[in-house]
Amino acid sequence: MKSKYVVLLVVSVIAILAMVWLSGSINERRAEKVALSETPQIDGEDQYRSDEWKRYYPRQYSSWLKTKESGEIHDLLKEYPQLPILWAGYGFAKDYNAPRGHYYALQSNTNSLRTGAPKDMKTGPMPTACWTCKSPDVGKIIERDGELEYFTGKWSKYGAEIKNSVGCANCHDNETSELRINVQYVNRGLKAAGLESFEESTHQQKRSLACATCHSEYYFKKTMWEDKDGTEKKAAVVTFPWHYGLTSEGMEKYYDEVGHTDFKNKISNAPILKAQHPGYEMHLTGIHGQKGVSCADCHMPFTQEGAVKYSDHQLQSPLNTMDRSCMTCHRESESALKAIVYEKYERKTQLHIIAMDNLAKAHLETGKAMEVGATDAELKAIRQDIRTGQWKWDYAVASHGSFFHAPEETLRNLAMGNEYAMNARLKLVSLLAKYGVMNYSAPDFDDKAVSQKLAGLNFDKMVEAKLQFKRTLEKEWNKQAVENNVWNQDAYKGVDNETAYSKNVNGIHVKK
Amino acid sequence: MKSKYVVLLVVSVIAILAMVWLSGSINERRAEKVALSETPQIDGEDQYRSDEWKRYYPRQYSSWLKTKESGEIHDLLKEYPQLPILWAGYGFAKDYNAPRGHYYALQSNTNSLRTGAPKDMKTGPMPTACWTCKSPDVGKIIERDGELEYFTGKWSKYGAEIKNSVGCANCHDNETSELRINVQYVNRGLKAAGLESFEESTHQQKRSLACATCHSEYYFKKTMWEDKDGTEKKAAVVTFPWHYGLTSEGMEKYYDEVGHTDFKNKISNAPILKAQHPGYEMHLTGIHGQKGVSCADCHMPFTQEGAVKYSDHQLQSPLNTMDRSCMTCHRESESALKAIVYEKYERKTQLHIIAMDNLAKAHLETGKAMEVGATDAELKAIRQDIRTGQWKWDYAVASHGSFFHAPEETLRNLAMGNEYAMNARLKLVSLLAKYGVMNYSAPDFDDKAVSQKLAGLNFDKMVEAKLQFKRTLEKEWNKQAVENNVWNQDAYKGVDNETAYSKNVNGIHVKK
Repeated sequence: MKSKYVVLLVVSVIAILAMVWLSGSINERRAEKVALSETPQIDGEDQYRSDEWKRYYPRQYSSWLKTKESGEIHDLLKEYPQLPILWAGYGFAKDYNAPRGHYYALQSNTNSLRTGAPKDMKTGPMPTACWTCKSPDVGKIIERDGELEYFTGKWSKYGAEIKNSVGCANCHDNETSELRINVQYVNRGLKAAGLESFEESTHQQKRSLACATCHSEYYFKKTMWEDKDGTEKKAAVVTFPWHYGLTSEGMEKYYDEVGHTDFKNKISNAPILKAQHPGYEMHLTGIHGQKGVSCADCHMPFTQEGAVKYSDHQLQSPLNTMDRSCMTCHRESESALKAIVYEKYERKTQLHIIAMDNLAKAHLETGKAMEVGATDAELKAIRQDIRTGQWKWDYAVASHGSFFHAPEETLRNLAMGNEYAMNARLKLVSLLAKYGVMNYSAPDFDDKAVSQKLAGLNFDKMVEAKLQFKRTLEKEWNKQAVENNVWNQDAYKGVDNETAYSKNVNGIHVKK
Repeated sequence: MKSKYVVLLVVSVIAILAMVWLSGSINERRAEKVALSETPQIDGEDQYRSDEWKRYYPRQYSSWLKTKESGEIHDLLKEYPQLPILWAGYGFAKDYNAPRGHYYALQSNTNSLRTGAPKDMKTGPMPTACWTCKSPDVGKIIERDGELEYFTGKWSKYGAEIKNSVGCANCHDNETSELRINVQYVNRGLKAAGLESFEESTHQQKRSLACATCHSEYYFKKTMWEDKDGTEKKAAVVTFPWHYGLTSEGMEKYYDEVGHTDFKNKISNAPILKAQHPGYEMHLTGIHGQKGVSCADCHMPFTQEGAVKYSDHQLQSPLNTMDRSCMTCHRESESALKAIVYEKYERKTQLHIIAMDNLAKAHLETGKAMEVGATDAELKAIRQDIRTGQWKWDYAVASHGSFFHAPEETLRNLAMGNEYAMNARLKLVSLLAKYGVMNYSAPDFDDKAVSQKLAGLNFDKMVEAKLQFKRTLEKEWNKQAVENNVWNQDAYKGVDNETAYSKNVNGIHVKK
C-alpha cells in the first residue's frame, strides 16, 4: 500500500511541477505580449536612426533590414534606350534604375548620376528637396531650420546631416509609435484636393497615406521668401499638384495653369513635365484602391511569429509574399493569380514601348525640323502635343507597379500618350515636307550609349566626376555624420558595395 | 365538465383540420416540385416554337418573353458617324443598331437595311448563313436539308421557314431539356483551337458555350461542294477562326493565312476584316472569365419564386439585375459597383472615338491619294495598316459589353488599332506630299447622312426598297409560315411595331 502512495505522491508532484512550468511559460508569453503592447518611447534625437528602434521593435527592424535583399541594380536606360531621348536635358537621361529597397534609398540618391558631383555645400546640381523622400532626418532639419530654409539651397548643403535611409521615424511617432508624417506638404496637397488631412484620416487611410508621402506625383514649387535677417531667398518646395483632382488630366491642368515645366527637352525644345511616380494616385483608381485596400495590406502583410503578429516592414513586391498578401482575400492558386498579373504586365509593356518609340521619334523629328529652319511658331502645337503625350506616358509608368495597381488607367494613359505623340509626328511630316525634307527617318536609338550621345551627354565624364565626389566629399560627409552621432555606419554595412551606374561600355560595375 | 370536453374536442378537431390542410399544402408544393423536376418532352416538330415549351416551363418562357422589353432602337451610325466611312462598301454602313432582346433577333435581321430587299427566294444580298444565329429553326433545316445545303444560297431562300426568334430549342434538348447546341460549327471551332467539344465540356462551361454559339467571332467560309445530283454548289459556312487561339492576334493570323477579307473599303480599297462580336473570346480574357464565371451566372441569374428556383431567361444587362447577378458574390453597394462599371465605360469610349476618327481619316486620306494618282504599290503598306488597325478596333468593341467583360483587352486592342491607323496616316502625309498635296484635311464626317453619302449610299432608296419588301414578300412569308404551322404569329405580337431604320432626316420612325 505504501508504494502506491509513493507513486501517487510522485505523480502529483510531477503534475504540480508541470503546471507551474506551464503557467510560467504562459506568464512569459503574457509578459512578452505586455512588453510588446507597451509603447516604448524613443529619445527625440535618436529617433532618426532606425537602429535605435531595434531594441523595442526587433521584428519590425529585422524585416526593414531585409529591404537590403532588394539590392539589384537594374539599368532602365539600358533596357529602354528611348529614355535618354525623352529626357534629354534632364537628370533622368543620365541615370535611371529600377527601384531598390528602402535600405538603399538614400545611398541610391547620393550615387545617382542625376545628383551630380558636388564639391562643397553650395554646389548641386540638385536642390535640397531631393533629400525629402530619402530620409527621416529631413523632419529633424525642418524642425530645426524651418521648412523654407530646408527647401533652400543645393542638396550638398545637408550632405553631412541627412544620412539615415527611409526608416522608422518617417512614418512613426517616437512617443506613441502611431502613424504620423513629419513633412507638411502632404496635408497641403490633401487640402488642395479637398480631402481630409493625414491626422483626420482613418487608420486604414493612413496605412496608404504614409506611403503617399513619397509615392505620389510632386514638383518643386519655386517659392520666394525672406529669412529673419530680411534676406530674400528662393526655395524649391515639394508640392503635390492635386488642385484639380488626382488624375493625369487634373494635374496637367494645374501645371499648365501655374505655367510649370520641369525642363526643355534638349533635342526638341519641347516644354516637358516629368511625372514623379504618382503611385498613390494610380492606386486609388484601381480595383484594390477602390475597395479600400491599403498599400500596407499587401506590401506590409501581417506576419505571425509565435504569439506575436506584426506588420512585415520588408517592403517589396507582394508576389514574393502571396501567401500573406494575396491569399488572405483571394481563393485561387498562387500560380493562377500570378499568371493574371503577368498578363497585365505584358499588356502594359506593349503599349509602353510603342508610346516611348513614337515620343522619341517626335523629339528627333522636331530637332530635324529646327535644323532645316522651322520656326518656334510652326513648332508650337507640335511641342505642346509632345508635352501632353510625354506627360501621359510618364504618368502611366513612372510609379511602381502601376500596371497592376491600376491596369486600366495605365493602358488608357499610355494609349492617350501615344495618340498625342502620333499627332505631333503627323504635323512634323507636313512641316518637314514644307522645308523640302521628304521621308525623313530619325536616327536609331536602340542602344543606351547611342541615345545618351543624341541627348548630348558624356557618360564617362559624369562617372569620373561622381567617383571623385565619392572619394572626397562623400567620405567627409560620412566622417562628420559618425562624429556627430547622427549616423551609425555599422547599420549600413554594404549599402554602397555597388554603384548605381557602371562602366557600361564593358558592363563591369564600378566597385568601391 | 361536459363543456370542457366539448371545448377540448373542438380544439382537437381544429388542430387536426389545420394539420390536414398544412400537409395538403406541403404535398401540393411537393407535387409542384416533382412536376417541375420531371422532364417533359416536347414534340420534335414543335420544339422550334418557344411557345410550345411554355406549358412545361412557364417561368422560363415568361422571362424569355420579357426580352421584349429590350426593344429600343438605338441607331449607332447616328451616334458614331465615323462608322459608315469605316464600313463603306459593306452592309454595316447601311444600318447598325444597338442590340435588342432575343425576342427581336429574327425580326431585326429581316428589318435591317443590311439584308436588303429580296424579291424572291433567290435574291439577297445576304447568304442563308445570316439566319444562323437568329432562330432555332436553323437546326431543323440543317437536319432536313443537310448543313451544306443550308449554307448555300441567299437568305430569302428560307424566309418562309425560319420564323421563330432565338429561343428554347437553340440551347435545350427537346427530350432531356439539357443544354445542347443544334449547329456543328461550334465544335469545329473548339477542335481547331484544341479545346474540348461542347458535349465534353462541364455544365458550367456549357453555360457559356451555349451563348458562344452566337456571341463569338466568325466568318462565312466559302466552301465548294457537290449535291447528290452531282451539281457543284458554293456554300458560305459559318466558321470560327480559332485556329491560332482566341485572341485578336491569333484570329488575324488565321485570316491572313487563308487570305480572307470581308470587303474592300469603297473609299480606300483597303481589304477589311469585319469583326463579328467576339464576346465569348473577350470574356475569357477578363477577370470574370478567368475566375470561371459563366455568361449565365450574371445574365441569367437564379431567381426564387415561391418554392421554385429557376434561371431568368430575360437576357439583359446585369446592371438591371444586380441583386441577383452581382451581389451573390460582391459585397459592395450596388451604387459603388455601378460607378466602377461606368468608369470602365468612359475609358473605353475615350479610346474608341479616337481610333474611329483616325481610321476614318485614314480611309479618306487614302481616297485622296488615289484621286491624285498614288499607285496600289505605294498604298499597299498603308492599306495593310488600315486593315490591321480596323480589325483591332472592331475586335475591341464589336461584342456586347467588352468594356466590362475584358476592360484591359478592350483598351489594349483599341490602343493598338489606333497605333496602326496613325501609322497609316503618317505614311499618307508623305505620300500626299509626294503628289503635291500639302496639309490635306479629310472632309467632315460628323453626321450620319454626310458619311453615308461619302460611303456612296442612298439611304432613302434603301428604305424605300425595304418597305416594298415588307409590304409584299415578307407578308407572303408570314402567311406561309402560319399556314404551315411553323410559326405562331400571336406569340410575336408587336415584334414589328417599329423598324430598325427611320426617316432619320426628320427623326420620325417609320411605323408599319
